[in-house]
Amino acid sequence: MAIVIALDVMGGDHAPGVVIDGAARALRERPGLRFLLFGDAARVEPLLARHPALAQASELRHTDHFVAADVRPSMALRQGRRSSMRLAIDAVKTGEARAAVSAGNTGALMAMGKVVLRTLEGIDRPAIATTLPTRRDPVVMLDLGANVECSPQHLFQFAVMGEVYARTVLGITRPRVALLNIGTEEIKGESAVREAAALLRDSPLEIDFRGYVEGDDIPTGRVDVVVTDGFTGNVALKVAEGASKFYASTLREAFRASLRARLGYLLARPALERVRHRLDPRRYNGAMLLGLSGVVVKSHGGTDAFGFAHAVLSAARIVEQRTNERIIEEMRRVAGFLATPQLRAAAS
Amino acid sequence: MAIVIALDVMGGDHAPGVVIDGAARALRERPGLRFLLFGDAARVEPLLARHPALAQASELRHTDHFVAADVRPSMALRQGRRSSMRLAIDAVKTGEARAAVSAGNTGALMAMGKVVLRTLEGIDRPAIATTLPTRRDPVVMLDLGANVECSPQHLFQFAVMGEVYARTVLGITRPRVALLNIGTEEIKGESAVREAAALLRDSPLEIDFRGYVEGDDIPTGRVDVVVTDGFTGNVALKVAEGASKFYASTLREAFRASLRARLGYLLARPALERVRHRLDPRRYNGAMLLGLSGVVVKSHGGTDAFGFAHAVLSAARIVEQRTNERIIEEMRRVAGFLATPQLRAAAS
Repeated sequence: MAIVIALDVMGGDHAPGVVIDGAARALRERPGLRFLLFGDAARVEPLLARHPALAQASELRHTDHFVAADVRPSMALRQGRRSSMRLAIDAVKTGEARAAVSAGNTGALMAMGKVVLRTLEGIDRPAIATTLPTRRDPVVMLDLGANVECSPQHLFQFAVMGEVYARTVLGITRPRVALLNIGTEEIKGESAVREAAALLRDSPLEIDFRGYVEGDDIPTGRVDVVVTDGFTGNVALKVAEGASKFYASTLREAFRASLRARLGYLLARPALERVRHRLDPRRYNGAMLLGLSGVVVKSHGGTDAFGFAHAVLSAARIVEQRTNERIIEEMRRVAGFLATPQLRAAAS
Repeated sequence: MAIVIALDVMGGDHAPGVVIDGAARALRERPGLRFLLFGDAARVEPLLARHPALAQASELRHTDHFVAADVRPSMALRQGRRSSMRLAIDAVKTGEARAAVSAGNTGALMAMGKVVLRTLEGIDRPAIATTLPTRRDPVVMLDLGANVECSPQHLFQFAVMGEVYARTVLGITRPRVALLNIGTEEIKGESAVREAAALLRDSPLEIDFRGYVEGDDIPTGRVDVVVTDGFTGNVALKVAEGASKFYASTLREAFRASLRARLGYLLARPALERVRHRLDPRRYNGAMLLGLSGVVVKSHGGTDAFGFAHAVLSAARIVEQRTNERIIEEMRRVAGFLATPQLRAAAS
């Protein structure tokens, strides 16, 4: 059966053009996809006319409303009931679509996802996850900003979700999971992190828990899943982005500094292009709102059609791999364990 | 009058060689420095023999004891009373030295600093600060790991210390100060960060408070001082280091990938060397343990003589610029403000 994906055609800096071009690109890679498009018909129809295959595979539903990039989530919830973003999520709720993808406002998307879809059985709080390049395989990191303060149970749930994601979507047989921590303290880290480590060590799940990693371990590929609270995760993600941009811009300046350096650049260019390709953020585009009772993927707002297609294909893969169903199965297996901290303490 | 600096000659991965070579290098730059050297005389004397000027400017005090790199701070406190690290800090306490520099165990250094020197008047908790390269001038970031959980008052104190450091040691006339935060939440950030922002906005100090920055703003040079708790700061520092190393190693591989790329590298090399020089971590070596009642600087454990000299020169500059005295003056000016939150709330 075809996987139907609902698209918020009006979300993102370059909507609706990039969304339509991205969907067309995703369809070329996976001809079995079908789309429910929510957006301004007058603007979307001319774009669809350029992509006959996509037009064929899509149903366009008009709405005049959309969620602005800078609106507060609470406002989006109240005033955005007929917005393209909301209608895409509603389509997942009703079962018309199996996943929703939006390049719009992250906070609004998460707020609508929570209100409309609720959380998965066994999950208290959804988290934002993404993959990042490392020296080896990509690493999954979560939470990236949905939950500023997290209990040990929340961190445990994030670890389960990240592990299942890495196993199902990335195809890693036995993902190595770690908690992000710091190494300079007498008693390492925050108490929530320490207690989450105890839960992960003692749980009956077969998680390959590797303890703590520090910030500089993330790009080494030592582990496959890095778990942290949304405050730390958001800072870590942004710092990594900022450091990479800083490095790249300093390098660009260096290559422009002299004729000799320019010539060197021209010679090294094919090799440098391969680096750029390998680290291309578009290839890692798509933040998963894991833990919602439905598949919702957030594309970067500034991405292009290539990046948006990647987010769409990620959503399809989550559906196909039954990632959410497997998270529920895992959480059912630990329901008793999480409910009886006293017994657990006595046993350890 | 000469500034006397106490050195833990036995601390760090390459001690005592790098410490002695580094001190000699610092002395060449600032011939007015004097040193109190604490370490194993049998090992240090032959090294000193190679640096007659340093031998002339130094007094060597023998001890057989030193703090191991991996010992727990509490253990170092109990068993390290005659260690080279402890004796260096003791010398600051007695007034024989104006500053102590160690490349040893950070946790032990901070623990001994707190026990021996106590905190500055008005400061509840010392913080670890360092400077980092940006597109413009270096930025001061703190705390980097001394305090995992921080109250709004702690963050406020870090901001005052960082601002005074940037003003006195870096010579920035009016440093721009910001709190590290995230941008994806309805109500931004953690409550401690929000309350610290209110304190900084309302305080009678002339701090140029610029509100919040996100992780990717740090290397842009938009602000001069970035304030955060020790958990987030440590993660941010390590992530930035890890991302830079990852970028550099990927680049090295690319330049080795083909003969053509190698040739390009050779041509671009002088320009690339300038990048390396500009981002050279040794030029930013030296973490300041700000808030202790005495100047203590931690050198990176793995640095070389060039890096260690930089840490020594930073310590001298903190002494010379009366950074600690100026922090006390600032904190005296806000003692009343911090003591009366009710009045403050009523006035705002």
